[in-house]
Amino acid sequence: MAKENDAPGISRGPLPHLKGGDSFQLHAMREKLGERFDPIPVVEPPTPDPELDRAVAELRRIRDAVSGLAHSQVELGDVVDRLAEVADLLVERVPDEQTRLETMWTGAGSRRANPVSGTENPLAPPVRFYGCDDGSIRAETTLGLAYQGPPGCLHGGISALIIDHMMGVANHWGNRFGMTAHYEIDYRAPTPLLQPLVFRSWVAESEGRKTWTHATIHAGDRLCVEARGLFLEASVAVPGRPGTRSTIGDGA
Amino acid sequence: MAKENDAPGISRGPLPHLKGGDSFQLHAMREKLGERFDPIPVVEPPTPDPELDRAVAELRRIRDAVSGLAHSQVELGDVVDRLAEVADLLVERVPDEQTRLETMWTGAGSRRANPVSGTENPLAPPVRFYGCDDGSIRAETTLGLAYQGPPGCLHGGISALIIDHMMGVANHWGNRFGMTAHYEIDYRAPTPLLQPLVFRSWVAESEGRKTWTHATIHAGDRLCVEARGLFLEASVAVPGRPGTRSTIGDGA
Repeated sequence: MAKENDAPGISRGPLPHLKGGDSFQLHAMREKLGERFDPIPVVEPPTPDPELDRAVAELRRIRDAVSGLAHSQVELGDVVDRLAEVADLLVERVPDEQTRLETMWTGAGSRRANPVSGTENPLAPPVRFYGCDDGSIRAETTLGLAYQGPPGCLHGGISALIIDHMMGVANHWGNRFGMTAHYEIDYRAPTPLLQPLVFRSWVAESEGRKTWTHATIHAGDRLCVEARGLFLEASVAVPGRPGTRSTIGDGA
Repeated sequence: MAKENDAPGISRGPLPHLKGGDSFQLHAMREKLGERFDPIPVVEPPTPDPELDRAVAELRRIRDAVSGLAHSQVELGDVVDRLAEVADLLVERVPDEQTRLETMWTGAGSRRANPVSGTENPLAPPVRFYGCDDGSIRAETTLGLAYQGPPGCLHGGISALIIDHMMGVANHWGNRFGMTAHYEIDYRAPTPLLQPLVFRSWVAESEGRKTWTHATIHAGDRLCVEARGLFLEASVAVPGRPGTRSTIGDGA
């Protein structure tokens, strides 16, 4: 049974269905990583802002509805006027971005605001990560027109975006952290739009400050994309908190 | 002087300011690639749909305004109601995604709809590529809160998304094409949000069906990200056009 918890976009979920071709094995992982491999408790998520979550959910509905609408018979004039009103209302009310950035880091942080799994971010694709008992992270989703690269296929850069983030989530789930230092992707087959995809990631190896993390995208039995990332423990200055540094990486 | 043309997100622009540390040299490129290196004429862009472009421009203003607004004093209730009205209006009017996908490929294609440089796509970051006379592609932009990974920094996956697309644009500009087969990124230094960034890409080598393309992101003089991609001439089936295949890749 999945335990819902959206802290870093992780929910506890069922074991992934491992296929014959998969190299991920729990016992091998435990031998490699020992106790470090045990899933860590999911931390308390930041408190949601329900109004913002609702606004962003509506923006996503609009985003998906306008995808591929060029030169259609669909009337948009009234929609444009209403959107312009909303934009004007908002732009007058909001502080500048530097102020919002500093407020974020003296407050709730970015977990709910990130561009991949953030419920507060209208860019975020409909991907929800589940932390599995075997230490891997899994997401199942179907992606639409807004994410297109080659005809009818997922944009390779969108695969790269989601995988980079997912590897960070896997690190977090595997009790590791770090920032992406090197990242390689092999595109094995076209990744289809409008068909169910399975994303998986797991910590493959770790040593000192380094973590090596793997990820795959499958469409049914077909391996479409595989990736390997090297993550290094590192820190960056925290906006709005002089003298403070943070180790928060892409997926945490 | 920049020649504006948004066909594949390319405009002819000024020569990039090459720094001492850069390895990109026109004469070396010409020796490697010969005539193939000459920039190709920018093809005719698909006809814009002005209403859709305006709707998407307003969505982007709203997207940027809501970034990092959680738990702020900014009133959102009226905004949510208006956005819900727009979403309801649209969802009733639009054809399903499969139909829109097929319409796209029997019509204008995806050039103006892609998730990186598509004026019709509300996901697309504010990045505009310029094709330089030396065969490279250049974009200058400042990215905001919606693109955050580590505190105050660009999400590594967003770098990967933009670079994958930009390498496709560079291939197009260099009269090469292909789909991403393998892609490597090194993150050399944190890439700052809210500061000007320079993205560059160029075809480094090509042979038969293969093209090797490089890319960098700089913040001022600091090299933040560098990447190398291998692109293979390949094709995928075109939705809505049985028996037809297309070689259109991520950035073309």
